Amino acid sequence: MNKATNITLKQAAEYLTEHDYFLILSHANPDGDTEGCAYGLCGALQRLGKKARIACSDPLSERFSYMEEAVEKQQFEENCVISVDVADRSLLGDLEEKYGDKIDLAIDHHISHRPFARRIYVDDSAAAACEIIYDLVKLLGANCLDEKNAKCLYTGIATDTGCFKFGNTTKYTHQKAGELMEYGFDAAALNYLLFDMKTKARIGLERYVFENLEFFAEDKGAAIALSKEILDKVDIEDVNGISALPRQIQGVEVGIVLKEKDDGWKVSLRSNCVNVQEICSHFGGGGHIRAAGCTIKTADAEEAKRLIKEEAAKAIEKLLK
Amino acid sequence: MNKATNITLKQAAEYLTEHDYFLILSHANPDGDTEGCAYGLCGALQRLGKKARIACSDPLSERFSYMEEAVEKQQFEENCVISVDVADRSLLGDLEEKYGDKIDLAIDHHISHRPFARRIYVDDSAAAACEIIYDLVKLLGANCLDEKNAKCLYTGIATDTGCFKFGNTTKYTHQKAGELMEYGFDAAALNYLLFDMKTKARIGLERYVFENLEFFAEDKGAAIALSKEILDKVDIEDVNGISALPRQIQGVEVGIVLKEKDDGWKVSLRSNCVNVQEICSHFGGGGHIRAAGCTIKTADAEEAKRLIKEEAAKAIEKLLK
Repeated sequence: MNKATNITLKQAAEYLTEHDYFLILSHANPDGDTEGCAYGLCGALQRLGKKARIACSDPLSERFSYMEEAVEKQQFEENCVISVDVADRSLLGDLEEKYGDKIDLAIDHHISHRPFARRIYVDDSAAAACEIIYDLVKLLGANCLDEKNAKCLYTGIATDTGCFKFGNTTKYTHQKAGELMEYGFDAAALNYLLFDMKTKARIGLERYVFENLEFFAEDKGAAIALSKEILDKVDIEDVNGISALPRQIQGVEVGIVLKEKDDGWKVSLRSNCVNVQEICSHFGGGGHIRAAGCTIKTADAEEAKRLIKEEAAKAIEKLLK
Repeated sequence: MNKATNITLKQAAEYLTEHDYFLILSHANPDGDTEGCAYGLCGALQRLGKKARIACSDPLSERFSYMEEAVEKQQFEENCVISVDVADRSLLGDLEEKYGDKIDLAIDHHISHRPFARRIYVDDSAAAACEIIYDLVKLLGANCLDEKNAKCLYTGIATDTGCFKFGNTTKYTHQKAGELMEYGFDAAALNYLLFDMKTKARIGLERYVFENLEFFAEDKGAAIALSKEILDKVDIEDVNGISALPRQIQGVEVGIVLKEKDDGWKVSLRSNCVNVQEICSHFGGGGHIRAAGCTIKTADAEEAKRLIKEEAAKAIEKLLK
């Protein structure tokens, strides 16, 4: 692999302009931001007359199915591979083996980005990678955006900021979201779908979470473990955003949700004041300061909870000193 | 009373510049927008060296107590009375008798505004009256805003748009919110307080709502009546935003929450596609197209529910035709 080179956004735009056959990779367990980047950029490149397609180790979530309308299905041999919102090559999942050392351009906003591509553009001041993609497609020229791919980019910005609530939201986040809305998609209907609509199964799951939360560190921490048995009762869609619930309770500084997987417990942390990225790094995980995750490789729920609560309690204590 | 005159925002700014002793009135049962306007404008006028104070028939909600930091308590005889976000003089509550025909300037964003002031500035394209106040204080000159009153104006914009989720949100809403954030208050902490934080009592109330909802019109309508007995168990703060819950359920087009009051049932409607303002107008109520309210003057919960469900069912049927 060549040495990674940091390039400017203008250089990234030039690079895209000079090429014609693009494969765009999003990260495994895709969220609104990585999918929004992929579909938004793919649609923009296609509108420029280029060939572009998307690959991800996991299927597009049902919730984001509208994104498929933004792109045309195209078959071709790519000569340019781009990753979007991928902080580490391992996050490519099943695609890592094939593409891990073949990425020509990585566009990302994670402060924890570990270089793996030949060209890199990382801006960790962007609340969402979709903010960067929006700036990038503007550089590609007019007519890159329409109602459909603008909606994809808005999705990434809205989901990564909790609909403009989180601390990563800046003046520019708002400005870009407002500009994207001008392309005419129904933002209210989209926001309802992304943030407000709940299935009855979801309402039941939320109830289970609130009824079974374990408080610790003088009620400043709250944790819940969701076993496969519980998770199997609901759609995968219904589990989305569950990680944010414990932190919602007045007084809770660190909210922890553990989900049972084949290889152990997948842990999601959310906080108000505590650096949860640091907590997760103890278990080989990462993410953002106020939202991070890791996997604890034990089958034992109590053991997994004990380990993560211990680290979280230490961090809470440090904060309160 | 003199005939009402519609003025421009520039004329409103000139009018404020020419006067020095302001009383600012917000509407009864105040929300984030009317309070945000009052405190934001009051702070701005005080920063200009003018005397300004606020009156409302109801106390400032605990949730918005930070707004008090934006203003100084001043005692004086006013020569200029301004109403903010007040659509009808009757909404002044207990202050109507004293001030109802003495309002010099009304600033509002309700399409249903019924003129009562000498000078009127209404812009129903503004998602929040705070959007207008922001434009107005910018016209008053630099240094009108600081971290504290900018936070008040942001509050109004954020709360009236459900944190930028609702259909009233425009490009300008985002732009103004982003600009206000630049004054340096902690927007993430504020949004957490306004939108995410829940007390344990609130979580219990939400559970009660979801467990006791009555579905109608082929599950496209959902209604719940909250008796005094239920409401008395929680803080008034905990009831805030409860009206939005029924509409969150997948498939529900009109969500209805009835709250028992001394003079009958206060009804709040929320919808995705149905004009609920029209439904509420049958009972002498009003509001916005997707969020409206009315009072049904009966002590009988079943009768109140029957009446409002009947009108809502008709509107849903009309929509589905």
